[in-house]
Amino acid sequence: MKNKLLLKDLASGNQESKKVIGGKVNGKIVSLNDIVDEIEEVQHITIESDERQDFLNHTCAQVLAHAVKRLYKGAILGKGSYQNSGFYYEFQLSHSIRAEELPMIEQEMQNILGEKLEIERLELSYEKAAALLSEKREKLKLELIHEQRENNPISLYKHGDFIDLYSGPQLPSAEFIKAFKLSAVSGSYWKGDKNNLAMQRISGIAFASKKELALHVKEMEELKKRDHRKIGKEMELFMFSEEAPGMPFFLPNGQLLRNELQNFLRDIQVEGGYREVQTPLMMNEKLWRQSGHWDHYHENMYFSDVDETKFALKPMNCPGHMMIYKNQLYSYRDLPIRLAEFGQVHRHEYSGALNGLLRVRTFCQDDAHLFVRPDQIEDEMKSVLLQIDKVYRTFGFDYSVELSTRPLNSMGSDHLWEQAEQSLKQVLEDLHVAYQVNEGDGAFYGPKIDFHIKDAMKRSHQCATVQLDFQMPVKFNLSYMDEKNEKQRPVVIHRAISGSLDRFLGILIEHFAGNFPLWLAPIQAVIVPVAEVHLHYAEKLKNQLEKCGIRVNLDRSSEKLNYKIRMAQKSRVPYMLVIGDKEIEKNEVNVRVHGGKSSEAMAIEQFKSMLSEKITKRELG
Amino acid sequence: MKNKLLLKDLASGNQESKKVIGGKVNGKIVSLNDIVDEIEEVQHITIESDERQDFLNHTCAQVLAHAVKRLYKGAILGKGSYQNSGFYYEFQLSHSIRAEELPMIEQEMQNILGEKLEIERLELSYEKAAALLSEKREKLKLELIHEQRENNPISLYKHGDFIDLYSGPQLPSAEFIKAFKLSAVSGSYWKGDKNNLAMQRISGIAFASKKELALHVKEMEELKKRDHRKIGKEMELFMFSEEAPGMPFFLPNGQLLRNELQNFLRDIQVEGGYREVQTPLMMNEKLWRQSGHWDHYHENMYFSDVDETKFALKPMNCPGHMMIYKNQLYSYRDLPIRLAEFGQVHRHEYSGALNGLLRVRTFCQDDAHLFVRPDQIEDEMKSVLLQIDKVYRTFGFDYSVELSTRPLNSMGSDHLWEQAEQSLKQVLEDLHVAYQVNEGDGAFYGPKIDFHIKDAMKRSHQCATVQLDFQMPVKFNLSYMDEKNEKQRPVVIHRAISGSLDRFLGILIEHFAGNFPLWLAPIQAVIVPVAEVHLHYAEKLKNQLEKCGIRVNLDRSSEKLNYKIRMAQKSRVPYMLVIGDKEIEKNEVNVRVHGGKSSEAMAIEQFKSMLSEKITKRELG
Repeated sequence: MKNKLLLKDLASGNQESKKVIGGKVNGKIVSLNDIVDEIEEVQHITIESDERQDFLNHTCAQVLAHAVKRLYKGAILGKGSYQNSGFYYEFQLSHSIRAEELPMIEQEMQNILGEKLEIERLELSYEKAAALLSEKREKLKLELIHEQRENNPISLYKHGDFIDLYSGPQLPSAEFIKAFKLSAVSGSYWKGDKNNLAMQRISGIAFASKKELALHVKEMEELKKRDHRKIGKEMELFMFSEEAPGMPFFLPNGQLLRNELQNFLRDIQVEGGYREVQTPLMMNEKLWRQSGHWDHYHENMYFSDVDETKFALKPMNCPGHMMIYKNQLYSYRDLPIRLAEFGQVHRHEYSGALNGLLRVRTFCQDDAHLFVRPDQIEDEMKSVLLQIDKVYRTFGFDYSVELSTRPLNSMGSDHLWEQAEQSLKQVLEDLHVAYQVNEGDGAFYGPKIDFHIKDAMKRSHQCATVQLDFQMPVKFNLSYMDEKNEKQRPVVIHRAISGSLDRFLGILIEHFAGNFPLWLAPIQAVIVPVAEVHLHYAEKLKNQLEKCGIRVNLDRSSEKLNYKIRMAQKSRVPYMLVIGDKEIEKNEVNVRVHGGKSSEAMAIEQFKSMLSEKITKRELG
Repeated sequence: MKNKLLLKDLASGNQESKKVIGGKVNGKIVSLNDIVDEIEEVQHITIESDERQDFLNHTCAQVLAHAVKRLYKGAILGKGSYQNSGFYYEFQLSHSIRAEELPMIEQEMQNILGEKLEIERLELSYEKAAALLSEKREKLKLELIHEQRENNPISLYKHGDFIDLYSGPQLPSAEFIKAFKLSAVSGSYWKGDKNNLAMQRISGIAFASKKELALHVKEMEELKKRDHRKIGKEMELFMFSEEAPGMPFFLPNGQLLRNELQNFLRDIQVEGGYREVQTPLMMNEKLWRQSGHWDHYHENMYFSDVDETKFALKPMNCPGHMMIYKNQLYSYRDLPIRLAEFGQVHRHEYSGALNGLLRVRTFCQDDAHLFVRPDQIEDEMKSVLLQIDKVYRTFGFDYSVELSTRPLNSMGSDHLWEQAEQSLKQVLEDLHVAYQVNEGDGAFYGPKIDFHIKDAMKRSHQCATVQLDFQMPVKFNLSYMDEKNEKQRPVVIHRAISGSLDRFLGILIEHFAGNFPLWLAPIQAVIVPVAEVHLHYAEKLKNQLEKCGIRVNLDRSSEKLNYKIRMAQKSRVPYMLVIGDKEIEKNEVNVRVHGGKSSEAMAIEQFKSMLSEKITKRELG
């Protein structure tokens, strides 16, 4: 017979037992109150473990719910869950909670924590649980247990006279919560369905120490400062309009950035022997049925009628590239064929999901398809990986790599899959790339490698993807002639490095907080004449620098020097050149690097060649 | 009382009377058989005049109809008209005429011309004309005279026993036709309406001398050779697919061309102080109603649904640029604001009208909008005109200029129009540009200047357009603050230089017959090693040239030298470099310019700097 026991019992006696908040049993995270069937392997989770955040958020959400029940008569509990690194809880309530009321709720939560109530877990039959929840008038919780009434018994969470469903992981005591913060109140719908009841959602985050909360607050402030939508406005990079939600307008400064990024990615492509193409923005729906996009993706596609035929705006560039490949005959010697496109794609997103440049409805993909022989997979993958590394290093991004292998529903022979997965592993190992394997998480058409970049704020963004595809060549009946003049099927490698120029720009803006490296900066130098008498010389200098392809602004205002210097510092332009009598006399510039405190005199020629070199090399600093 | 007389009577007695084929009376072209009411001014048109082609084609179309009636029993006459520089005539006939039958028809036409029949003009009452056409069983002609039975009398054309409606201008005698050629037979519909009877259309062209025909045939052959669709295939520049009719796919070589053209136009823009932007490909239909595009253009637009709202794919970039302008406040000192976009637009065309890159359903416009104060119109127009001149000269295009003035239905004050038209004339005169005035042909929103380039085959293409717009600023309520801090309305200048990158590429392909200037050529040099032993050195040379940004091919085949040289010559690559023992020994290349007969030895460094200079300067030769 299996042992049924509470983890709590296992924890006691441990010398660090006071810090234990839960455990990992047979790889699964559980609360101390959880009942465990069979224990093969157990690790304790303490309030210092990485996993503590889940426990803190879970229990703090319940403390929030407890406080709301106390403060607002008639509040009915909805559901709570994770959100970003924090938690939320939803309530049905006729009174509209305003942001100004959050401190009052926080105070009540403090009161509850001060009462040092015990957290209990009740195991009740469906009938008893229903009776208890009825008494508390929790009609939504009743709906929830009704849906799971087969799973007898029902676990309830009890904290003083507060009753909720028990869902873990929960702290053994609310006292572990040493700090918390409510961040927002917003509208939502019961179970996220807008046909249901309107709910009010309160969000927050909990911590095991006041220091962590202070760090979090500081981080939030920094993130707010770096918000690409805010910087985008300040630097006049892009705008949005109600007339085209989720479809960015690039303003002149943003378009400069975008063109620089595109030129960089284009250079990398030319270096790698890629050939750029361009395919139509919409094509007959028939083609999208052939490619399988219609089956898997049509809810995210936009359509238009052309001569009474349904056309689809492209959500991806693959079918167009397949058609270009098919336009010619190839021998084994012609492969690999590497086609690249800066393809503007359209994909539907719900308006609520749109988020500046990070989540849009149309974006430019730096897409490429490599048509390779099976024996070329390894070499080509290696080159692709090296290219990705080069691009990310240029921006100073760290990144992590995930290899996703064959899923249950997949196509292609066992042999091909094994060979392909083995090749990908080999490539990663040959290049000494650390990677994590996501078993069974590949696409149905082939295994893939995903890249997650880490920005300056340690946030992770999935950008590059490299996918092997055995299916597309079959669907489009692609071929090449081998040494024996027999038809063979090529393998397709899909790859994107930025993934989306638009989203990547959004990430870059936040990563650099708008302080772009010289080569990317929309304006690279600003000239500040000391007084009006120096303006004429400044104009000449501007011309001279512009002839070298340097993007220069000149402050022609009649403001005081200090004010002009302050404005230039605020503008995030990498170099400031102050021009006064001395500089004119010596044919010099007084150079101040953005963010730097001191300035340096430099001959104009020296400055020009320094900048040109940094720009050509796309230097970070 | 007014004189009614036949022009024929005026013509006789003239000393060149044998050459007279018609006249220009009060500015209108008439046949000698025409009855003229009142003569203020008359000029004779002879068989040597520029206007002869209309007469020749008109009468030859009737000779064709005559021959068809003789050869095909039951053929019923439809209508004839101009087509390109020739003519066509349509017939209803149960037998399907094949192209192989055209020589037989041409022979019968020769027979008719040999009979030297007189061309007569009959003026009959509607009843008599109808009786005559009934007798000839010309049911379609009966339909036509029935429609115009109010216009008594009816003029008929009689040539032997052949009867047709008389429509001019007609030669006084078919003997003036010294040569002709039938070019094609195709299907059409009565009155061009596909709900009507199917017709068979025979096309041809007539000349006053055999020499002109010979020239025409040669020209047609040259045009066929230069056909951009043919060269596009040979050079692998672009392709089309049934899945997206009228929407070009740019293949790698074509995309290189396209990028070079775009970079050139971008450089010109940067030079002119334009700032590049990018606006969404589709926007809410509401916006297109506001801009007036919906009223004037919606039949040519494509639509899509976004969140149950109708969006339109942009046919033009104007509204997007207006929105960008409106995103900021401007003082009079900020103007002019020059926004440019390489905007991909979609415009519906009937499938029958599509023609390679010359008539497509989606293209990239090199579009710009200048927001200027009224006092800046002249200077800005001048800069725009100089830019257009620079671009066209770079390709060796001649061009003609047309100024279109205020139409009847127009908006804006008299004063503004007068000032604007005067400014445009002043600009054209200041720049010594010869121009033609098209009175009343301007857009309803402002006067415009159109540019027609002449290609190497003397064909004319309307490309650049510069338009003043007083209406868009009103519709979008644009403003700037003047010196007195009062709101003023800017004027918008729309301008495009290539008009459409895609169409311009089509024109360039035919203009250069695929022999592009170095900077545009997809491949700029091809290396031909004399034998396999020279291949290693050739590879190194290729690398070396590519590092300078030169696009190089290397012939690695094991073919004989002569064959390799012939292939390189056929490939239209500007430079061929033959590499043998001597070149390796001396560190030289043996350079042969495409189309040139001799070759020249040159140090590699010299060759590199020569090419780099030509490319940077975008030299024609």
